Amino acid sequence: MNSFGQIFRLTTFGESHGIAVGGIVEGMPAGIPVDEDFLAREMARRRPGQSAITTGRQEEDRVELLSGIFEGKSTGTPIGFEVRNSNQHSADYDNMRDLFRPSHADYTYTMKYGIRDHRGGGRSSARETLSRAVGGALAKMALRTRGITVTAFTSQVGDIVLPGTYLDYNLGDAENNAVRCPDTETAARMETLIREVKAQGDTIGGVITGVIQGLPAGVGEPVGNKLHADLGAAMLSINACKGFDYGLGFADCGKRGSEMLDTFVVRDGSIMTAANHSGGIQGGISNGQDIYFRCAFKPVATLLREVETVNKDLEPAVLKARGRHDPCVLPRAVPVVEAMAAMVTLDHLLLSKTARL
Amino acid sequence: MNSFGQIFRLTTFGESHGIAVGGIVEGMPAGIPVDEDFLAREMARRRPGQSAITTGRQEEDRVELLSGIFEGKSTGTPIGFEVRNSNQHSADYDNMRDLFRPSHADYTYTMKYGIRDHRGGGRSSARETLSRAVGGALAKMALRTRGITVTAFTSQVGDIVLPGTYLDYNLGDAENNAVRCPDTETAARMETLIREVKAQGDTIGGVITGVIQGLPAGVGEPVGNKLHADLGAAMLSINACKGFDYGLGFADCGKRGSEMLDTFVVRDGSIMTAANHSGGIQGGISNGQDIYFRCAFKPVATLLREVETVNKDLEPAVLKARGRHDPCVLPRAVPVVEAMAAMVTLDHLLLSKTARL
Amino acid sequence: MNSFGQIFRLTTFGESHGIAVGGIVEGMPAGIPVDEDFLAREMARRRPGQSAITTGRQEEDRVELLSGIFEGKSTGTPIGFEVRNSNQHSADYDNMRDLFRPSHADYTYTMKYGIRDHRGGGRSSARETLSRAVGGALAKMALRTRGITVTAFTSQVGDIVLPGTYLDYNLGDAENNAVRCPDTETAARMETLIREVKAQGDTIGGVITGVIQGLPAGVGEPVGNKLHADLGAAMLSINACKGFDYGLGFADCGKRGSEMLDTFVVRDGSIMTAANHSGGIQGGISNGQDIYFRCAFKPVATLLREVETVNKDLEPAVLKARGRHDPCVLPRAVPVVEAMAAMVTLDHLLLSKTARL
Amino acid sequence: MNSFGQIFRLTTFGESHGIAVGGIVEGMPAGIPVDEDFLAREMARRRPGQSAITTGRQEEDRVELLSGIFEGKSTGTPIGFEVRNSNQHSADYDNMRDLFRPSHADYTYTMKYGIRDHRGGGRSSARETLSRAVGGALAKMALRTRGITVTAFTSQVGDIVLPGTYLDYNLGDAENNAVRCPDTETAARMETLIREVKAQGDTIGGVITGVIQGLPAGVGEPVGNKLHADLGAAMLSINACKGFDYGLGFADCGKRGSEMLDTFVVRDGSIMTAANHSGGIQGGISNGQDIYFRCAFKPVATLLREVETVNKDLEPAVLKARGRHDPCVLPRAVPVVEAMAAMVTLDHLLLSKTARL
Repeated sequence: MNSFGQIFRLTTFGESHGIAVGGIVEGMPAGIPVDEDFLAREMARRRPGQSAITTGRQEEDRVELLSGIFEGKSTGTPIGFEVRNSNQHSADYDNMRDLFRPSHADYTYTMKYGIRDHRGGGRSSARETLSRAVGGALAKMALRTRGITVTAFTSQVGDIVLPGTYLDYNLGDAENNAVRCPDTETAARMETLIREVKAQGDTIGGVITGVIQGLPAGVGEPVGNKLHADLGAAMLSINACKGFDYGLGFADCGKRGSEMLDTFVVRDGSIMTAANHSGGIQGGISNGQDIYFRCAFKPVATLLREVETVNKDLEPAVLKARGRHDPCVLPRAVPVVEAMAAMVTLDHLLLSKTARL
Repeated sequence: MNSFGQIFRLTTFGESHGIAVGGIVEGMPAGIPVDEDFLAREMARRRPGQSAITTGRQEEDRVELLSGIFEGKSTGTPIGFEVRNSNQHSADYDNMRDLFRPSHADYTYTMKYGIRDHRGGGRSSARETLSRAVGGALAKMALRTRGITVTAFTSQVGDIVLPGTYLDYNLGDAENNAVRCPDTETAARMETLIREVKAQGDTIGGVITGVIQGLPAGVGEPVGNKLHADLGAAMLSINACKGFDYGLGFADCGKRGSEMLDTFVVRDGSIMTAANHSGGIQGGISNGQDIYFRCAFKPVATLLREVETVNKDLEPAVLKARGRHDPCVLPRAVPVVEAMAAMVTLDHLLLSKTARL
Repeated sequence: MNSFGQIFRLTTFGESHGIAVGGIVEGMPAGIPVDEDFLAREMARRRPGQSAITTGRQEEDRVELLSGIFEGKSTGTPIGFEVRNSNQHSADYDNMRDLFRPSHADYTYTMKYGIRDHRGGGRSSARETLSRAVGGALAKMALRTRGITVTAFTSQVGDIVLPGTYLDYNLGDAENNAVRCPDTETAARMETLIREVKAQGDTIGGVITGVIQGLPAGVGEPVGNKLHADLGAAMLSINACKGFDYGLGFADCGKRGSEMLDTFVVRDGSIMTAANHSGGIQGGISNGQDIYFRCAFKPVATLLREVETVNKDLEPAVLKARGRHDPCVLPRAVPVVEAMAAMVTLDHLLLSKTARL
Repeated sequence: MNSFGQIFRLTTFGESHGIAVGGIVEGMPAGIPVDEDFLAREMARRRPGQSAITTGRQEEDRVELLSGIFEGKSTGTPIGFEVRNSNQHSADYDNMRDLFRPSHADYTYTMKYGIRDHRGGGRSSARETLSRAVGGALAKMALRTRGITVTAFTSQVGDIVLPGTYLDYNLGDAENNAVRCPDTETAARMETLIREVKAQGDTIGGVITGVIQGLPAGVGEPVGNKLHADLGAAMLSINACKGFDYGLGFADCGKRGSEMLDTFVVRDGSIMTAANHSGGIQGGISNGQDIYFRCAFKPVATLLREVETVNKDLEPAVLKARGRHDPCVLPRAVPVVEAMAAMVTLDHLLLSKTARL
């Protein structure tokens, strides 16, 4: 249960302070050019220490691709990969050995397994998402051969909400600022808020919006593994993600059916929708329009201040985190959202080839 | 891709106007008393025509359990079941044969399969959720032997929002009114709104809240198949569901980490949380507290008024639905939300037994 | 764990003396003509009571297809089906309620589940293979649109072994005699042996050979789910099947590599093998040559004579079967071997479409 | 499709001449002591160059466990591992770049993927089974905490067949000779034959027998994933394995039911069988007796002599292998058979815990 996908399938391993994290990508279509520079750039987008508003940890995160590639192209066989852990300050976590940090997985892992690697959160650390970024980069390499793109950006931090929809911005602009918001003015306000929160030893949550463009109609499944259900599960598997909606989502609830209709029209000889309230998916299957969705991220639970908790002997205890942590995960979660979305998209694109003989 | 679950696994079949809908439940634990009266009551909760604010269709929805039960108990072998379709007015749909209804799955199924059963929406009809209700009823029978309950209720219709949280009401009261809202006064306002909308040939969306109680700590998976990710995928697989969040969910995004901490305390000799902002799940694994979540439902797309669309020859067309449809799916979706949640819960409870030898 | 296949997937349910047996076929490619007459003929081949050397039970085995078909073609959605049980003599089994029949699954089911439906062997009855025959007939309908055929025949009964290989006979001739052996003279000797054994209240085992023709090169998987491993698992899942080999199989073991080489040659502008010792599969993937394999079937364990055993209270007991049973399962297992092989072949043919984008 | 198992699940990656081979073990039960010395010994049993009758390659095969272990015990999270490739003579394979070696997977991989890593057989190399040995060693560590053992030995090489059954020997003696046959005299004759064959630049096949002891009754599945079907698929996934049977297997076919009955008796207060013709499994589920099975291995296809073949341009070509190869794979396949059997056994043991709540 450490896998994502049916055909294009990522399985991950690794703890934050173990020897390495990594994974295996199965089902990479054969013959796709593997662009290692692109991979390195994608990893850099997720890396800690990339700006003043992310954690101060400096990790190199150098990915080694171990198999499945021959003379620069995917061979169709599994791509094993790993990233060695380094720059670990395991001693920072010694005081957490017998404590259960509030809002963390310490207690639940202990109850499930009876044993846990307490250093740096172990398997529950967001460092595991590094493997998702690798899988996502490979998926993007395949998708772009079909003109399909996956983009995400920060659309809310605390109570600062991006005013427009994804159509109102040049999404590429999100990479020009530290919060990864495509609107310069909003980005600046978000960044200021994150700095304030950080100065208080506190953290803040927000929303990431994702967009999939260029996916043809007819991709998805009708009951189990609906395209949006697989997207939702993928997003909810990202650390700190607490909610998912697509199309108008929760905003739909207050509306009437007559307002929400995705009327079909013919444009350039093709069937399209006049609006796209449905978010590109109907009945679990893509309709050829843009797919857009939102992911809610809670504020990180690790505070740089004293916190009350209990230890494994049920005694009260006080905890002061000494690790290096993000005051807001959104900027570094943006590439992870893209990675998960790219993997789900490619998986379903491959699966859709089996609908007819 | 018509299945849900790993160990406790439901696979469904059937179209709205075919011969029957049904499914197979695998992994029902052996030795559980099978209560056919309870099953019948659960089916009645999902049945069309149960009140003035649901569709006028009268379906008997009699479930026949075909296997896997011996002398009133589950044997551990698969339980096949079916519900024969009847009371079909297939001719109501003749005019839809070559049309693509806006916001429906007509177009996407056609693009995927090249063929579709247009009668009553075929496989994309909400009638398919009848099989989910059967699976859910069986899961509930197993869960109650361990004191685990799953309850859902309508918490929003249009812009009418239930003011309190699930802790503020007697959830059983939801069954006392047609909208399945546990607050009598709010329920009355919701029902009035639905009647208004129906009179206009329109439809309205809303939110359903679900609650799982009594699940022990340590149930769930750490990376793939996180408990909340499986719950989310299950909910998003329900027709018209556009969003899912758990714990404080989207409301978390505007908050600071210091406000959201689930401080551990010792109560009655057990570790519990002071609040339960996390919604009973940390790191994908249950912590023994209540699990609560929300599901956003869009307004049903079938309006009882003229609607513009296109046909398969890319010509403009006007559509007037003649079927019988719900103005608001929420009341009948409540038991489906419970069913899906019960199946996910039982599946993970069984899976958690394999974490140690 | 009641399923076969990844994309084309059959899940079965049902006990011998329950209400019905049946299943769900997922992943049937869309647009395939569904030939119900062909299905009925396939079912007749598996039916009890079809000749003097099979069980005397008379079952109609009428299959009802419940979904997934529209105007005579598959729609790509799951095909649910059932066969009602009738002509049950459950009382024949009353004396077996507390006994464990030797070489049957009575004891193992009881140890696994703590409960069992003792009537007619319950889920362990060969009646379950009826659902396999339905899945196989559907798979054959899809395969024949690509010119792929699957054929099986009896090649050994007791110590009577068909002298030649599958290339030496007109395989269609196997349907002309009750044992389903393509050589008339050998078939007559086999039939005589079965009659003798039957007269003694005894049973006899044998071997079935299967042949898949017309499958293009490049179908299969390289490590897990090798084409021959999936075939082997499928065959070993058939009641009474104790062994499987493909190509020269066990006969290969005594040979030298230099004798066994499948030298490549060019014939009609295509790459072929001079011989076909490998049985059409190399490295788990088809090479375009005929695939051939053998399945070993043990003698049926139900004897029509007194047999010593123990009961659930660990007391010695004597058992006299009163049901109606085959003296030799081979003739009726031939269509089941074909069905399983057809399903595996179609599943892999669909899967092979995902190897490249 | 590079995985084995449902709960205890091994996924492998890697090509013979790539950077590394390795894999991920999911579902290792938590709290099992991980014995790295035992792991090293198991790897040494599979290593090339271990005796005069195996390939002359000298590989260190040092396994690095990368995750899932904390303070010497499994944590329940996935165990990633890798073995770096070294001592590669890739240039030995340059002449095979455009050739299709007879009886190898060169042609079938090319037809499936359109691209292949020709060096050392790539993914189709038996080097991939190194990852199986790692998974098997971990499974054995878990099984031995329950007193369950898995043992295999060479029972046939060419036409030299071990005269007795597994009960007639001290199975541990198999490790005392290079062919891994428990009978000293037979082992010596087998070794002589292998040396002769090797001197001729030829290769030879044989049979490996496996035995699982100590598995309690009630482990397995009734229809899909029967215990022996999963065992069979696991064995058939091993390179060069062409056949599998269990219990009396193919030898059963010539017998009568009355000879083959596994009569139940009570011994030491437990239900056992008088004989064990069924090989410890009835109806797909263990009965508490020893499980024994055979695997047929073909002679290795790589000969150290000139061989005729064709190239990718359909031209005739002559091939002379220059790599280092085993004249007989049996001795080194014995630990791989054990590894696969151990993994299947543990997987089903874990799965059996879910049969009851």
